[in-house]
Amino acid sequence: MSRPRKILAVTGGVGGAKLAVGLAQLLGPDELMFAVNVGDDFIHLGLHISPDIDSLTYALAGQNNQELGWGRAGETWQFIETLGSLGGDDWFRLGDKDMALHMRRSLMLQNGASLSAATQEVTQRMGIAHRVIPISDDPIRTVVQSTQGDLMFQHYFVRERCEPAVHGFRFEGMANAVLNPTIAAYLADCDAIIICPSNPFVSVAPVIEVAGFLAATEQIPTIAVAPIVGGIALKGPAAKMMQELDIPTTALGVAEHYQHKYPHLLNGFVIDSTDADSLPDFNLPTIATQSVMSSLQDRIALAEACLDFFDQLAA
Amino acid sequence: MSRPRKILAVTGGVGGAKLAVGLAQLLGPDELMFAVNVGDDFIHLGLHISPDIDSLTYALAGQNNQELGWGRAGETWQFIETLGSLGGDDWFRLGDKDMALHMRRSLMLQNGASLSAATQEVTQRMGIAHRVIPISDDPIRTVVQSTQGDLMFQHYFVRERCEPAVHGFRFEGMANAVLNPTIAAYLADCDAIIICPSNPFVSVAPVIEVAGFLAATEQIPTIAVAPIVGGIALKGPAAKMMQELDIPTTALGVAEHYQHKYPHLLNGFVIDSTDADSLPDFNLPTIATQSVMSSLQDRIALAEACLDFFDQLAA
Repeated sequence: MSRPRKILAVTGGVGGAKLAVGLAQLLGPDELMFAVNVGDDFIHLGLHISPDIDSLTYALAGQNNQELGWGRAGETWQFIETLGSLGGDDWFRLGDKDMALHMRRSLMLQNGASLSAATQEVTQRMGIAHRVIPISDDPIRTVVQSTQGDLMFQHYFVRERCEPAVHGFRFEGMANAVLNPTIAAYLADCDAIIICPSNPFVSVAPVIEVAGFLAATEQIPTIAVAPIVGGIALKGPAAKMMQELDIPTTALGVAEHYQHKYPHLLNGFVIDSTDADSLPDFNLPTIATQSVMSSLQDRIALAEACLDFFDQLAA
Repeated sequence: MSRPRKILAVTGGVGGAKLAVGLAQLLGPDELMFAVNVGDDFIHLGLHISPDIDSLTYALAGQNNQELGWGRAGETWQFIETLGSLGGDDWFRLGDKDMALHMRRSLMLQNGASLSAATQEVTQRMGIAHRVIPISDDPIRTVVQSTQGDLMFQHYFVRERCEPAVHGFRFEGMANAVLNPTIAAYLADCDAIIICPSNPFVSVAPVIEVAGFLAATEQIPTIAVAPIVGGIALKGPAAKMMQELDIPTTALGVAEHYQHKYPHLLNGFVIDSTDADSLPDFNLPTIATQSVMSSLQDRIALAEACLDFFDQLAA
């Protein structure tokens, strides 16, 4: 196989979006589609909020907030601060510009549009040529099973700042969620899948566990990029979760988790150069490269390395 | 009768709110209640917006935007500008801080609170001691009958910038609207009513036409302050409407309109000094004083003049 011509990238939020930006620099809108997690979605203040779709959207539009590491560039906080002063719920920090996206999407959904259609409208308005596709238009809601009981993902992640210890996850609605037909159609002649460096439990699992996804991708070369570097998560609670779930907090731990849980998923694995001395321990093709992405150059370089890896795997 | 001890002030939006601020400086929370128009209310972007309640609230809290002449002080526009860029409806200029009030109220209403309860929560949080009471907790919606057909008030006022010629008004829901019990109870021993300089057709009418209001106030000395000075409206479309309705656009025209439409309503009328030469034409007790209110001092002086006027009427 030569360098793949049609790639599906599976992403969660901010971490995965970095690699997504690199891929979008190398591949055209017909060569690259994003399958995005909706398990983090929730209804808050009456608005439908899709944190992972929005993180990817802002990153692809060059509108991600680089100072904060989340949210939209040039953001202000007049709404949420005033809401707090009026006794309203202000634990979820909705920026003034960010609010507009949630409002636009919510009104479209209320008028009967699908989440896909609302996402397409927003991404096109923001000048994004690549297709950002929710893994399903049906609701999938990640519930974190914790020492504080079952928590909706954003309650765990934002309100409780990931403090409760985790012992499992549940994806409400998963049994009835239909794989997005746009993704299903794309998979029919897709020749490579990249799982971006996103949280395996709450970003990747609720994508790949949608009925039909694993079966449809079994014959397609698939690689994952480790979200753990030097024993720590580059972003978010992945490492803390692994500890609480008794999984070694290493890149190898991530690979073994995927292999154990989804035996036919991975054909290759990408780890950071920092962890190169663990390469002999992997029982699947694995490369070590710089996976910590600070600059746009880093994002493109990692995307290049991933594409080259498919050549290696095919050789 | 000596100076009244319990006053009900009827107000619409920005114009009426100026006198309201003056009255609130002179009278304590037990001596003054505001009965506020809800005919301008509408649902927009899924939020319940109450423009007159909010104009009064911002004015009483000292949070009205003095540069704009409407809305909240220190306002920013990130939300509405971003919404427009995403293809959303941006004709109604919702400020970022203002949004928070609409959101807080809307969520309270969705949770079963009355408009009165939501208003109380907001006014108290903003440090307002006086009671701001919607004339009814039931929906009353002003419809402007115009050359462009029937228009919801905000569509006429904001979206169409008052351009269509008006030939009448309709108050949807009026037949079923119950006079706010808080106002009904207050009226039982209220000894004076001031109709603030608000639009007679779309601010005052939908307050005083609520079933039971006119009957309950017939024995209570009532004065109105003309919203027309020197033939022009101090704020909003009152003069333009009067022209289109074939009513002379003068303070006298306003008084005669009230007397014709609500024969038992008024016991006195207040006009601006500019119009003093028309005093002999009025067939009810009328005083001329400075009613154009630029400063806080002006607001207090007009409030004083109104209170003194009740003494005169009782003498």
